Amino acid sequence: MHKFLAKCDEALAEISAQGRYRRFVALEKLVETFPYYRVTMEGKTRDILVWSTNDYLGMGTDPVVIEAAIDAARNYGAGAGGTRNIAGSSPIHVALEEELADLHGKDAALLFTSGYVSNQASLTAILNSLPDWHVFSDAQNHNSMIVGIKGGKQATVHIFKHNDMADLERLLAAAPADAPKLIAFESVYSMDGDIAPLAEICDLADKYNAITYLDEVHAVGMYGPHGGGVSERDGVADRITIIEGTLAKAYGCHGGYITGDFKVLDYIRSVAAGFIFTTALPPPTVAAALASIRTLKADNARRALLFNRAETLKAKFKAAGLPVMPSTSHIVPLMIGNAAKATEVSMRLIREFGMYATPINYPTVPQGTERLRFTPGPKHTDEMMDELVAALCQILQPAEAATA
Amino acid sequence: MHKFLAKCDEALAEISAQGRYRRFVALEKLVETFPYYRVTMEGKTRDILVWSTNDYLGMGTDPVVIEAAIDAARNYGAGAGGTRNIAGSSPIHVALEEELADLHGKDAALLFTSGYVSNQASLTAILNSLPDWHVFSDAQNHNSMIVGIKGGKQATVHIFKHNDMADLERLLAAAPADAPKLIAFESVYSMDGDIAPLAEICDLADKYNAITYLDEVHAVGMYGPHGGGVSERDGVADRITIIEGTLAKAYGCHGGYITGDFKVLDYIRSVAAGFIFTTALPPPTVAAALASIRTLKADNARRALLFNRAETLKAKFKAAGLPVMPSTSHIVPLMIGNAAKATEVSMRLIREFGMYATPINYPTVPQGTERLRFTPGPKHTDEMMDELVAALCQILQPAEAATA
Ligand SMILES: Cc1ncc(COP(=O)(O)O)c(C=O)c1O
Ligand SMILES: Cc1ncc(COP(=O)(O)O)c(C=O)c1O
Repeated sequence: MHKFLAKCDEALAEISAQGRYRRFVALEKLVETFPYYRVTMEGKTRDILVWSTNDYLGMGTDPVVIEAAIDAARNYGAGAGGTRNIAGSSPIHVALEEELADLHGKDAALLFTSGYVSNQASLTAILNSLPDWHVFSDAQNHNSMIVGIKGGKQATVHIFKHNDMADLERLLAAAPADAPKLIAFESVYSMDGDIAPLAEICDLADKYNAITYLDEVHAVGMYGPHGGGVSERDGVADRITIIEGTLAKAYGCHGGYITGDFKVLDYIRSVAAGFIFTTALPPPTVAAALASIRTLKADNARRALLFNRAETLKAKFKAAGLPVMPSTSHIVPLMIGNAAKATEVSMRLIREFGMYATPINYPTVPQGTERLRFTPGPKHTDEMMDELVAALCQILQPAEAATA
Repeated sequence: MHKFLAKCDEALAEISAQGRYRRFVALEKLVETFPYYRVTMEGKTRDILVWSTNDYLGMGTDPVVIEAAIDAARNYGAGAGGTRNIAGSSPIHVALEEELADLHGKDAALLFTSGYVSNQASLTAILNSLPDWHVFSDAQNHNSMIVGIKGGKQATVHIFKHNDMADLERLLAAAPADAPKLIAFESVYSMDGDIAPLAEICDLADKYNAITYLDEVHAVGMYGPHGGGVSERDGVADRITIIEGTLAKAYGCHGGYITGDFKVLDYIRSVAAGFIFTTALPPPTVAAALASIRTLKADNARRALLFNRAETLKAKFKAAGLPVMPSTSHIVPLMIGNAAKATEVSMRLIREFGMYATPINYPTVPQGTERLRFTPGPKHTDEMMDELVAALCQILQPAEAATA
């Protein structure tokens, strides 16, 4: 046997022994019944109430968005048929880039096949532009940023304590004054649900002449009066060099992007491998995303309802003594602390109560901080929440947890 | 000004000076008129005959494929709404993976957001599994494989001369006998249009106990009696460890995948960052790809027509004395040898003759080998080809070229 095959066996056995082997539950997202999904398990087909979608606002099932996808499929077909350079740029790709630039008040935008690729390809391209970059990266940055930063072959990487401005300043002050500097961070951190102090980071960037790279993947569409993210909400979008986002979460579609100055984006467009060497996004996805962004620019009621739902669920969890984490965003994580137990709670929820929440384990979160992650949306009612709390109380016995 | 902004200016000026600044032509791919696309240039809107799509068989505009996308948009919405682990796995994702495994006669398949990501994420995951990998990579491998291989932090990388079995064997023989080895290569090389000797590579892999990783991105759907690629055509699919492909070229949709043994794929599924940390493919794309693969499994006539069209165009180019490159595939590249000239020829074709062929320049091909790349499909008629040849003769004056 080739050593690699032996290694696969061994690694899989170890992952299983740690209780973090992932079995994907096949959930059939249905437009008609969302957030109920159809699930077939152990021979039975049931409607399951899903609490863990990242289609936070339900835009993926919005009729306007769906009709845009359908029209584009009819008119333009199922795929782009080429890279952006090889016959894959269409007027709707250009229109979507213009819409995104406008959303963030920037000169220009650049589409990527995903948010993951936008982070990885852009950060690697930036950090290979000069030989002496110093990067300051939040300790809880997403894997796509970490991998993108690692792609910068000669960059010096400094990890600052999560959202810790004193630590960030200490590291900035210690780096060579004339070295090019970049601070990479997120607005909403999706596993804890906390939010970065954007204005303070911009102040430090100004003081130490650093450019800023902000991942708004879990904020676009939801924060700010037009859905421009926390940078719009906090009035600092013009102080951020590059704002990155996804079309796959609150916008309910697929794909990623960056926005910023024309020259910077034109440079990244010209050199970033992950942008150049891949097929452009399919027209139905592009058209759907355009419709979704335009709808959400004008729909503050949907955003208000999202926050109302999240605050309501947090309050109900707290009142029941459930171990809800101190989120300041629309994300409601419940600490479990153990991979096998998180999986077991999730399985009992689905089997016994017809509800689904994803167990989050390593490598998505550190070992020992395994959790369930709830993302209630506009369609999750108070009654659904009460049922969820009752189910979790039965499974977790929070009286013990609260007094422990 | 931050050093990075100065660098962007400088680099863009250099790219322009080299004649390789890319202006994407916005081509509106229209289902109704494909391969004529609608183009607005200099205030005029015209139908342009496109010769450079990678939707090689026109499946992106096939009614069966489009209806599948539309049905899925209606039933499941515009986006998956989560990573595969976080509520983003649906029964159609699973069905597509089963269909792909079957296509290549393998145990299992794994979907990625693109062919680019499938190569990058899989190769990096494999090469970080053991500390002492030796990789043998064809000199003309695609950027996505090169970047994936570079992600293997401790791997020793050997580049073998393009399709040169003696060079590959020399390198294999020189590497430590007991080190784990991987040979990475493509079947159809998309810029030259030549094809790798798959059986010979498998023989060498057997002899030196290497596993094999084959990119069939420019072959799936088109080669082999069911569209299983050159590995199916040559009867060697069962000798290849991992077969990788895209849904974005001959299948006309979007996304990428790998197929192979269950254990190997389960390992990659469990550790590959580019698989784990990103939203699953949107349902309309997944459903369209399923329909496209199933259609092409049974449609040898469409494949035969593709090869007939490519051979016809090659013969017409040759007869006219045009500098067609010695392709053995469906790809018809015309050597120009200079970036500015390739761009000029492309622009004259579109402006004066209403036809489009992408100029291919660095970094997609080495400097000095710039070319135009033609990919005639089932809908490109003899008459269209005669017009194209006449236009190219007028622009390129091949009498000179032929006698030079
Ligand atoms: C913070 C963050 N950035 C980027 C991504 C990647 O976005 P996408 O799903 O569009 O690839 C994710 C999650 O998927 C994320 O959580
Ligand atoms: C050989 C090869 N592999 C992989 C890819 C990437 O595939 P995708 O367009 O699906 O990202 C391409 C081109 O795009 C390619 O030419």
